[in-house]
Amino acid sequence: MKPNVYRNPDLHHVHLTGGFLAEYQRVIRDEAMPYQWKVLNDQIEGVEKSGAIENFRIAAGESENKYYGTCFQDSDVGKWLEAVAYVLSWNEDEELEACADEVIELLARAQQEDGYLNTFFTVEQPQNRFKNIRECDELYCFGHLTEAAVAYYNATGKRRMLDVMCRYADLICRTFGDGPDQIRACDGHPEAETALVRLYEATGEPRYLEQAGFQLNTRGSEPYYYDIEWERRGRTSFHPHLQGEKPSDDREYDQSVCPVRALDHPVGHAVKMGYLLSGMAGYSLYHEDPEMFDACRKIVDRILSRQMYITGAVGATRHKEAFTRDYHLPNDTAYAETCASVALMTALNWMLRHEPNAQYADAMERIAYNALPAGMALDGKSFFYVNPLEVYPGDVRADHDYDSVKMVRQKWFACACCPPNLVRQFAAMGQFLYMIQGNAVYVNLFAQSEAEFSLEDGRMVRIRQQTDYPWDGRVCIRIRNGGGIRLYVRRPQWCASIRFERGGAEIHPEDRNGYAELEIDADDATVSMEMDMRPYLVEAHPRVRADAGRTAVMRGPVVYCAEECDNGPLLHNLRISQKEDIQVLSDRLFGAPMLRAAGTCVTEDGWANALYRRRTGGERARSIVLIPYAFWGNRAQSCDGEEMRIWLLK
Amino acid sequence: MKPNVYRNPDLHHVHLTGGFLAEYQRVIRDEAMPYQWKVLNDQIEGVEKSGAIENFRIAAGESENKYYGTCFQDSDVGKWLEAVAYVLSWNEDEELEACADEVIELLARAQQEDGYLNTFFTVEQPQNRFKNIRECDELYCFGHLTEAAVAYYNATGKRRMLDVMCRYADLICRTFGDGPDQIRACDGHPEAETALVRLYEATGEPRYLEQAGFQLNTRGSEPYYYDIEWERRGRTSFHPHLQGEKPSDDREYDQSVCPVRALDHPVGHAVKMGYLLSGMAGYSLYHEDPEMFDACRKIVDRILSRQMYITGAVGATRHKEAFTRDYHLPNDTAYAETCASVALMTALNWMLRHEPNAQYADAMERIAYNALPAGMALDGKSFFYVNPLEVYPGDVRADHDYDSVKMVRQKWFACACCPPNLVRQFAAMGQFLYMIQGNAVYVNLFAQSEAEFSLEDGRMVRIRQQTDYPWDGRVCIRIRNGGGIRLYVRRPQWCASIRFERGGAEIHPEDRNGYAELEIDADDATVSMEMDMRPYLVEAHPRVRADAGRTAVMRGPVVYCAEECDNGPLLHNLRISQKEDIQVLSDRLFGAPMLRAAGTCVTEDGWANALYRRRTGGERARSIVLIPYAFWGNRAQSCDGEEMRIWLLK
Repeated sequence: MKPNVYRNPDLHHVHLTGGFLAEYQRVIRDEAMPYQWKVLNDQIEGVEKSGAIENFRIAAGESENKYYGTCFQDSDVGKWLEAVAYVLSWNEDEELEACADEVIELLARAQQEDGYLNTFFTVEQPQNRFKNIRECDELYCFGHLTEAAVAYYNATGKRRMLDVMCRYADLICRTFGDGPDQIRACDGHPEAETALVRLYEATGEPRYLEQAGFQLNTRGSEPYYYDIEWERRGRTSFHPHLQGEKPSDDREYDQSVCPVRALDHPVGHAVKMGYLLSGMAGYSLYHEDPEMFDACRKIVDRILSRQMYITGAVGATRHKEAFTRDYHLPNDTAYAETCASVALMTALNWMLRHEPNAQYADAMERIAYNALPAGMALDGKSFFYVNPLEVYPGDVRADHDYDSVKMVRQKWFACACCPPNLVRQFAAMGQFLYMIQGNAVYVNLFAQSEAEFSLEDGRMVRIRQQTDYPWDGRVCIRIRNGGGIRLYVRRPQWCASIRFERGGAEIHPEDRNGYAELEIDADDATVSMEMDMRPYLVEAHPRVRADAGRTAVMRGPVVYCAEECDNGPLLHNLRISQKEDIQVLSDRLFGAPMLRAAGTCVTEDGWANALYRRRTGGERARSIVLIPYAFWGNRAQSCDGEEMRIWLLK
Repeated sequence: MKPNVYRNPDLHHVHLTGGFLAEYQRVIRDEAMPYQWKVLNDQIEGVEKSGAIENFRIAAGESENKYYGTCFQDSDVGKWLEAVAYVLSWNEDEELEACADEVIELLARAQQEDGYLNTFFTVEQPQNRFKNIRECDELYCFGHLTEAAVAYYNATGKRRMLDVMCRYADLICRTFGDGPDQIRACDGHPEAETALVRLYEATGEPRYLEQAGFQLNTRGSEPYYYDIEWERRGRTSFHPHLQGEKPSDDREYDQSVCPVRALDHPVGHAVKMGYLLSGMAGYSLYHEDPEMFDACRKIVDRILSRQMYITGAVGATRHKEAFTRDYHLPNDTAYAETCASVALMTALNWMLRHEPNAQYADAMERIAYNALPAGMALDGKSFFYVNPLEVYPGDVRADHDYDSVKMVRQKWFACACCPPNLVRQFAAMGQFLYMIQGNAVYVNLFAQSEAEFSLEDGRMVRIRQQTDYPWDGRVCIRIRNGGGIRLYVRRPQWCASIRFERGGAEIHPEDRNGYAELEIDADDATVSMEMDMRPYLVEAHPRVRADAGRTAVMRGPVVYCAEECDNGPLLHNLRISQKEDIQVLSDRLFGAPMLRAAGTCVTEDGWANALYRRRTGGERARSIVLIPYAFWGNRAQSCDGEEMRIWLLK
């Protein structure tokens, strides 16, 4: 174990009490989770069937129905249960807990004698267990169910699901490894690694950490196991969607192109890459492995500096849902999968637990306030899988290049990975606010909240953040029982100037990796910070072709966008004044101030039937109304979708 | 027949004697055609195999080799022979003529007893003739071979190929129709219609015109023949690439979604649409059919006003190589197939033969000087199939959305429709210069040339254009033996002011549909026109999202572009001064003046590792060098491709 491992506080003791994040959590608790529970039980008419709960009943021998869905349908239940665990941490709810307990009992009954737990193979192809590690997502499903088990144990103290998953984990530890009778393979879709590290954290059993290490170290090694299993199976696939055919042998797609410690930039499927980073960072937290952590850092730095959208989203292309190349960040065909935002945010938190670095926390904040919340409607009942940064319905309907773009949020998906993933991430949001190590406390995210956590000396420190952040730039941090701690407050990189005050007087704290360092010397201390919240214009690196000649508007960490319902159509012609005279309106939209910027626009006057003409140069003055990108698509008049755009002509 | 059918002069008597078009014709005659002949004979190593000539030998029983290529491989030979015919019209060449005669004899030997002539079916599937009209391109190949036969007859007076094709046409007339034992189907890929009209023009046989009418009128009718033939075949396909599967039933793709006279906008495959328009316009020229011509006009008007690139190219998407929707004109993923430019230009000429309308001639000129020549390298030995208006290699390599984009011209293609199509179109360029009807002579294109044609009264009029157009705006038109004719000179829409002179004095001719009307009253008359050739900036209609905030530079009819080899990388950041202070340089590139525009550009200074930052607003002054789009990609240092861009920030 590294000498300085940072930990996040126990979620029981971090309460988001108001503002953007708390409001989202409320929608998730009251609307999204009950809605998703019904969907998982196929109880909502007119919504894509899930079958996920029923599959467990079938596997448990309690239903005669047919298996339904993808081979990774179990993971939806895992994510939902994990979300329940987080909600129960900050919100007692006997009914919800009873419901989860029932599901957990169902899972236990679906578990096989030897610990195996996977409804697809148990029901459909029991003879084919662990024979298609690359494509069939067994270890991926194991991972999500295990993360849920750990979270549920942490939330409720109940060991039932943890025991179930430990039995499965033990089977996996026996089955996978370098031994003569073992399978020398890692999961085709990374996820087991992180789950095993978390299982190690929860149980202290070194074999789980070792198995995580095996999974990581065997990835991309020779002889190439995915070819071996293909031969062993008699050159066929039993993945339900591949119909016996071999998938394309794309070793970048599943990050098996080389050993993970040789990677220095993101490759392949964006969610896989993000989950793998979590596994790498998590494992190297407990198993001293500087090379692996170094690879992790190189990949993450490359993402943040060259392959991340302004919203924090990643994975630019729909083709294999993948990372592409540096600076290739198209706005309209952006894939920017919701799950990839979850994955990157989680990976960043694991990175921070190695070394506080405000850049990682900045990126986490970028995702939390932009890419991630955009994935859900404000009523909690529809979702985006793909998150474009620009929508022009005429073009979306014109060209199959836009086939993955949905212009309105969907009630559910045949591949429903995103909705429950978003929900679990938001339900866990409190744990990303702080990190603790020794007597050092780091403030990574700002939000109205109450937190309490024990230091190593057993003391319970309490921290309250009083703020309307991100709508207001004033954050008042009151620390009780914290005499002698060092508080590190992130200085957001977006913010040009921050005023810190203590006891009414300005202070000038030292900078440590982007954090302001503050010695707390009283048992009831208050530190205030005032961030300049004037809206500002942002430009992208000159190599980002998609954003050339355009600027985006941000206020604090929040990315704004223009919508057709406020501005009329043809948003691509809106030119925003570069004087930064952007008004903050008193109109609020879901709590957020709307903005009004000065600008100009070309008009359609005088075009008649021409398609090209000599330039006239005429642009008419007009104002541009902007709202947070996170809230886009919630007010469209047309159920077919309307225009939206972040990057405006400058 | 319509009362006023315009005709193009006989190609024997139109000689392009200098300048852009003549230079291209020289490259085609001296380089491209000998090169293509070798390719068609599989004589060039390292080049995609054709097999096209060998297939005829196999069909004639003179070779034991295996059939090679697509089921429409014959059409490549047809196009090449047609190009030979046009070259022979303006350039005697005994060797070339002897070579063509040999090929024609080979074709004759490959023809079946009953007149059938198609190597794919003769060699591979003789039992399946005329059983898959939708997909297997038999009538399409018939069409191209027939166009070649007509052209060769017109060029040489030799009837051999015409007779061969008449025999095949007679078989088609017997086989296809409304009769009880006939096939009630039109060609899946339009082309036979135009060919039949041309065969009617050459032979005067009404049955060919009638068959063209049948083909046109049966398209999109119910009961839907393409379904009937699918059932008749036992629900299988024998198209070599479909492996027995039914193709998607996309009735827009082949313009069979409704009767052609009900169409009012372009649909489906762009080349099919263009060829169909030629057929519609050609047929209604000789068979009074106002409804069909009206549909034709609606579709063409819609293309020109909403779906044509600034280069004249059409067909925006690679997905099914199709027209999409109004104003959807992406520059970087543009498909803009070379064949589609050929098809539209030909259709426009047919339209003009109905009614002189300078807009159609303007579009023809746009294609002739931009989209079409861009399809061939200046050495005549490599070709574009897809013609993007913007290339950014980093993005092209990053995303499969760019899979159809080639950044450098290719030596040949597995589907090699474009290279011989471009060659035949350019070889025939002379015929698009003029139209004649009664004593009216229309000048549609400007180019240094000598032409001679007979009027209805038998007089031979001679017209010489003395000009360095399009590099210079002065055109001096000398008409001999033309006393009493009315000369209609197109006023290009791109040109803000044209000065006409006769005998040194300015004149102000009347405007007729975009043409200047001039009475020629002497037997040796000279009319001069001086077009303003100052470079100018062009804007696209505000609904064209891809061009928002950008302007293009044109000079005369020529679209200019910026290339990396002149301007360095990151062309997307070049901002061009809107003052129109664009210098015409003395440097010439393939005869064309290069341009230098004032502008600004953002730089990469101070970015370090950031991907987004607060705008700095700094742009550095710099000049921008521009060359004709037609010549792009001829000077790249890298064989992998370099940047190119038409639309610059304004």
